Amino acid sequence: MIERRHDPAKRGFASDNYAGVLPEVLDAIAVANGGHQSSYGADAYTAALAERVRELFGPSASAYPVFNGTGANVVALASMSQRWESVVCAASAHIHVDEGGAPESVAGLKLFTVPTSDGKLTVAGIEDALPDRAGDVHWAQPRVLSVAQATELGTVYSRAELGELVDYAHGRGWSVHVDGSRLANAAASLGVELAASTADVGVDVVSVGGTKSGLLGAELVLVLNPDAVRGVEYGRKSLMQLASKQRFLAAQFLALFSDGLWERVARHANSMAALLADAMADLPGVELTQKVQANAVFATLPREVSLRLMEQVPFYFWDEARGEVRWMCSWDTTEEDVRGFVELVRGELKCGEVRATHRAADT
Amino acid sequence: MIERRHDPAKRGFASDNYAGVLPEVLDAIAVANGGHQSSYGADAYTAALAERVRELFGPSASAYPVFNGTGANVVALASMSQRWESVVCAASAHIHVDEGGAPESVAGLKLFTVPTSDGKLTVAGIEDALPDRAGDVHWAQPRVLSVAQATELGTVYSRAELGELVDYAHGRGWSVHVDGSRLANAAASLGVELAASTADVGVDVVSVGGTKSGLLGAELVLVLNPDAVRGVEYGRKSLMQLASKQRFLAAQFLALFSDGLWERVARHANSMAALLADAMADLPGVELTQKVQANAVFATLPREVSLRLMEQVPFYFWDEARGEVRWMCSWDTTEEDVRGFVELVRGELKCGEVRATHRAADT
Amino acid sequence: MIERRHDPAKRGFASDNYAGVLPEVLDAIAVANGGHQSSYGADAYTAALAERVRELFGPSASAYPVFNGTGANVVALASMSQRWESVVCAASAHIHVDEGGAPESVAGLKLFTVPTSDGKLTVAGIEDALPDRAGDVHWAQPRVLSVAQATELGTVYSRAELGELVDYAHGRGWSVHVDGSRLANAAASLGVELAASTADVGVDVVSVGGTKSGLLGAELVLVLNPDAVRGVEYGRKSLMQLASKQRFLAAQFLALFSDGLWERVARHANSMAALLADAMADLPGVELTQKVQANAVFATLPREVSLRLMEQVPFYFWDEARGEVRWMCSWDTTEEDVRGFVELVRGELKCGEVRATHRAADT
Amino acid sequence: MIERRHDPAKRGFASDNYAGVLPEVLDAIAVANGGHQSSYGADAYTAALAERVRELFGPSASAYPVFNGTGANVVALASMSQRWESVVCAASAHIHVDEGGAPESVAGLKLFTVPTSDGKLTVAGIEDALPDRAGDVHWAQPRVLSVAQATELGTVYSRAELGELVDYAHGRGWSVHVDGSRLANAAASLGVELAASTADVGVDVVSVGGTKSGLLGAELVLVLNPDAVRGVEYGRKSLMQLASKQRFLAAQFLALFSDGLWERVARHANSMAALLADAMADLPGVELTQKVQANAVFATLPREVSLRLMEQVPFYFWDEARGEVRWMCSWDTTEEDVRGFVELVRGELKCGEVRATHRAADT
Repeated sequence: MIERRHDPAKRGFASDNYAGVLPEVLDAIAVANGGHQSSYGADAYTAALAERVRELFGPSASAYPVFNGTGANVVALASMSQRWESVVCAASAHIHVDEGGAPESVAGLKLFTVPTSDGKLTVAGIEDALPDRAGDVHWAQPRVLSVAQATELGTVYSRAELGELVDYAHGRGWSVHVDGSRLANAAASLGVELAASTADVGVDVVSVGGTKSGLLGAELVLVLNPDAVRGVEYGRKSLMQLASKQRFLAAQFLALFSDGLWERVARHANSMAALLADAMADLPGVELTQKVQANAVFATLPREVSLRLMEQVPFYFWDEARGEVRWMCSWDTTEEDVRGFVELVRGELKCGEVRATHRAADT
Repeated sequence: MIERRHDPAKRGFASDNYAGVLPEVLDAIAVANGGHQSSYGADAYTAALAERVRELFGPSASAYPVFNGTGANVVALASMSQRWESVVCAASAHIHVDEGGAPESVAGLKLFTVPTSDGKLTVAGIEDALPDRAGDVHWAQPRVLSVAQATELGTVYSRAELGELVDYAHGRGWSVHVDGSRLANAAASLGVELAASTADVGVDVVSVGGTKSGLLGAELVLVLNPDAVRGVEYGRKSLMQLASKQRFLAAQFLALFSDGLWERVARHANSMAALLADAMADLPGVELTQKVQANAVFATLPREVSLRLMEQVPFYFWDEARGEVRWMCSWDTTEEDVRGFVELVRGELKCGEVRATHRAADT
Repeated sequence: MIERRHDPAKRGFASDNYAGVLPEVLDAIAVANGGHQSSYGADAYTAALAERVRELFGPSASAYPVFNGTGANVVALASMSQRWESVVCAASAHIHVDEGGAPESVAGLKLFTVPTSDGKLTVAGIEDALPDRAGDVHWAQPRVLSVAQATELGTVYSRAELGELVDYAHGRGWSVHVDGSRLANAAASLGVELAASTADVGVDVVSVGGTKSGLLGAELVLVLNPDAVRGVEYGRKSLMQLASKQRFLAAQFLALFSDGLWERVARHANSMAALLADAMADLPGVELTQKVQANAVFATLPREVSLRLMEQVPFYFWDEARGEVRWMCSWDTTEEDVRGFVELVRGELKCGEVRATHRAADT
Repeated sequence: MIERRHDPAKRGFASDNYAGVLPEVLDAIAVANGGHQSSYGADAYTAALAERVRELFGPSASAYPVFNGTGANVVALASMSQRWESVVCAASAHIHVDEGGAPESVAGLKLFTVPTSDGKLTVAGIEDALPDRAGDVHWAQPRVLSVAQATELGTVYSRAELGELVDYAHGRGWSVHVDGSRLANAAASLGVELAASTADVGVDVVSVGGTKSGLLGAELVLVLNPDAVRGVEYGRKSLMQLASKQRFLAAQFLALFSDGLWERVARHANSMAALLADAMADLPGVELTQKVQANAVFATLPREVSLRLMEQVPFYFWDEARGEVRWMCSWDTTEEDVRGFVELVRGELKCGEVRATHRAADT
């Protein structure tokens, strides 16, 4: 029997990956255990998931469980492009700044980035950042537009915004990929089904996040438009994202997609972020820097206050130079977590003021 | 709640991946759940695993949990080589024939293969198959010798055999990698600790299998010689094998490495294979084609008999043209499974004889 | 005998690649012909070039002839980095926008780009664009700073500017690569030897251009700091840039590096650009958009005027939306070419005015 | 002016790459020089070559000049396959043993090799070496059959042999690539046009060698079946094989394809090899090990005799352990070269006998 090693001091707002596994998901894994199942996806749970995915996303949808978000994104993007093609994404995109160069290193993908203020691409922004060099061999030809829903900055595209991007991309012969590691949070934020900001607006392929929604570890490469991809099964294998005991990945998603679980947990995390944001907005010295539309709060506050806070509650700087921090809420964030943290921040801010006053008095 | 979908007809000898998860391992996952933990490996369970690995493999050993065997192998091999270097392995090696070209596709690795009859490399075999072209830029320079313990053919290197290969490789300036997806079975077969045929004979890096030993899904890149690798952490990330909730991978191995669990399950699977092999060897018409040293039995029998058997109990042809099949035993194979299957084979073989007699009589 | 297919209408300012081969270089190729030479670089001309390179760049310099600029850059960058590392360059860098994604596609290199107004990186610009995430596995670790001398925008770093960048890069543990496809033009512009803005300021590796200076086709990977690279010979081969009859690449550079030829042709091309720029600056309606420090002139003029001009003399838009064009001078650009073109532009601009006047009168 | 560095001692049978450039080809380069031409293939010589290629290989043929043989092969193979697919070739294939791992390293291609005794693949050999695992994601799916004409062992496929391989490959849904670095020698050997053993037997893509036939340095990716490839222009660029001054590559091939030059030089080299082989076959102690069908002679002779010979005339061991050597003839090999070498060998063999006799007498 292994030893329990819980550490209450780890509880905080560092990442939705710091939280554990939903009880419903652990149960699903236990249900899927026992007995033999064919390996590598030829099992009954993967089959059931395929059916559930068609119910949720339409009859032509197919889903390929993979291990992690980087894997989902790279398998998706590689299946949508040829060796010489490129991907257009926001400069803040996770695929550009947080995947250790995986798209380039393992799939040879070139990324062309577009600056944004809020993580959300716009047609004008793309046109402004990238020349039109279609057919020019010196310019790695864009083939995929990759947008994140929700974005790295906690913002959410409206369906109209996504629709406009999809139309633009399709008009240029590009396919559209959604990095949906927090797709559930975005859908809950919009108050719509998962299909509403993906299949229904013409998106071709989605990386559907699960781990950040409370799974142990599973993501989906969700193909909505079969014509936009080639060889997904082969790519998943050669990109090392095919699980031998895949039933356990499928079972996790079956649980998440059952009884409205995805929506419940996403709505909860979002509401905790809203609660946190509202309370923080009232604190003098804290300024929100992004709209709070999903489960993330971005704010600036005095750097030394943040440093003192971090000693007590885990969270990260987003842009240390600017004093910007990120607070993430997860499926297990509680109102007590939020209220306690707000009080802590309030106290440290005051403490900061007092110190500043003392320093001023000393001079 | 997700639906249970067990199918008794799946029970058989197709693969050690068809079996589920050890109860001790599910328990360990539950223990590790609850509370927050830092993500990406900065958690208490990964730290505990690091300590356990040093106990098992020596003070300079370090372990990097990854998702699957392909990932373990490619992360290991890429960390041991430069872009222009190559890997020497058996022609039957899993990395050559069963990983969808991942080593080449994602890490640009070239494999030079050596024919063997039993999956086991020898110095003479390597020398015979590969010219000595050290320093020749036209020849992708070998940098790593990769051997499987146990091999794809269910055979096991003695410690002396491995030692000889290690000495040879090191003498040529190559490092040695062990693909140990069934390392536990090999160690149990030799009656030794896991370190005995790895660290103790001078192996540099090992892919330690867990999934085939009854984990839900986890493998280790085990670095025994830090001088043989570069940037394992970076490579694991860029090769898409870094788990966000890594505590759950670590917890699985903590369970496997506790209370002799790895040895117990490996010895059990091996003993089931031995039982199966012994019984089969007595059946006229069945011929074992490899030594049974781990948990696999390779045999030839009439192709049409195999086809009829496969309708009842899952297993695979290894070399259909030759009528060779592979029967794998796993941690949950029972004596009843074995005895029942042997009887079934005996019956089908007789049935085959009868049919043959009838056919002969008809003519 | 093949047919001569000269087309006087091709003469213009499109690219320094439109010009042919210097007579001295054709002669050198003829001299190197005849007789047998060892292939793949073990020839007498490559040996002589190695010696000449040491004279020019110092005793630890070594040079690897390759076919083209993309090859030189990718061989250099790949030899300076590991699979998981990245390269920092200007957003306008040739390696980012004009090599068809080769660095990513063939070497898995990730590029992080820094916006500039004139193609020249600065320490402040780099710091502003890129966070400091040293040691963070999620951030493809920068290992190389790649600067172009001259830049894609025809500007030239002073030695002090380069020195500051080199110190900054080395201070962060990065190596420095110079994309010197127009290194000769830059050196001539600064009035210094080729070593002055490379070896003498601490640059580690240089792609030395030859083709744009009047060679038939040859570039050098010039290693100034052997500690900054690994396996250049192997990388050159596996990156498909090793010539079998390498003597003919070496002979071209021997010619370019003899009797001050590189300087003569670079100074000539630069002076033609200066002449063109001076004359254009006097034309109302033409505005220079970059300093003219090497052999390129960037300017804006009315788009319809450019379109009419392009029907008569080849040149390209640099940024069509802004009406910006690029005029390149080469080793064979003549004063007549320049003066004739200036008169043509003057005429078309007037013509444009007249038309505008007519249109105004018509309304 | 660069210095002439001819070394008569280099003259020998080491490689057809040791020879220089055909005078007709140097002339063609000079003809193509002078004046401006559009770069990157939009020049008049490339256009003329395209026309000549259609005359030689049929109206749907298109040719892409590249720098070297490795480049031609990798551009061809990458354009014929997807990231997860593989290539089937002989174990002795140049792409496997002599390209520094380029296919794997830069294009992620996996090669499955087939043993042969003479470098020539057969359907039976392929079937014997490779299982049929179509549709199995664990097996990098073969998509291209690559054969060399002539082979690395100097042998030549008959048109019937090639036709059988093409039919077999097409029947399995594979495309067929010919590595024709010595295609001219093969065609001359068969006494047919270049199209006869390529386009006419259904081959899809050919790497047409030029450098070994007396060019300065140029090869062609020749696409016979446009449906078998994707994005050749893009791949050529991203694989760093696009020449800026492409007119000079095209001009070389225009010369080779004019006035029967290719055939004349290939027939000459072949006849020198035949002369050499005939004379050697008469020498006791020399045994030919391959049929002499192109411009290579493979033979065994006492190792110490070879070592003494190599001090006087350059050539290489093919398989030093077996005492096998390779003698290559080129476009500039003369009858005197051959006769002189044969006499040298005869002398050294006698000398060896005498020594052996002395040694025997001493004991």
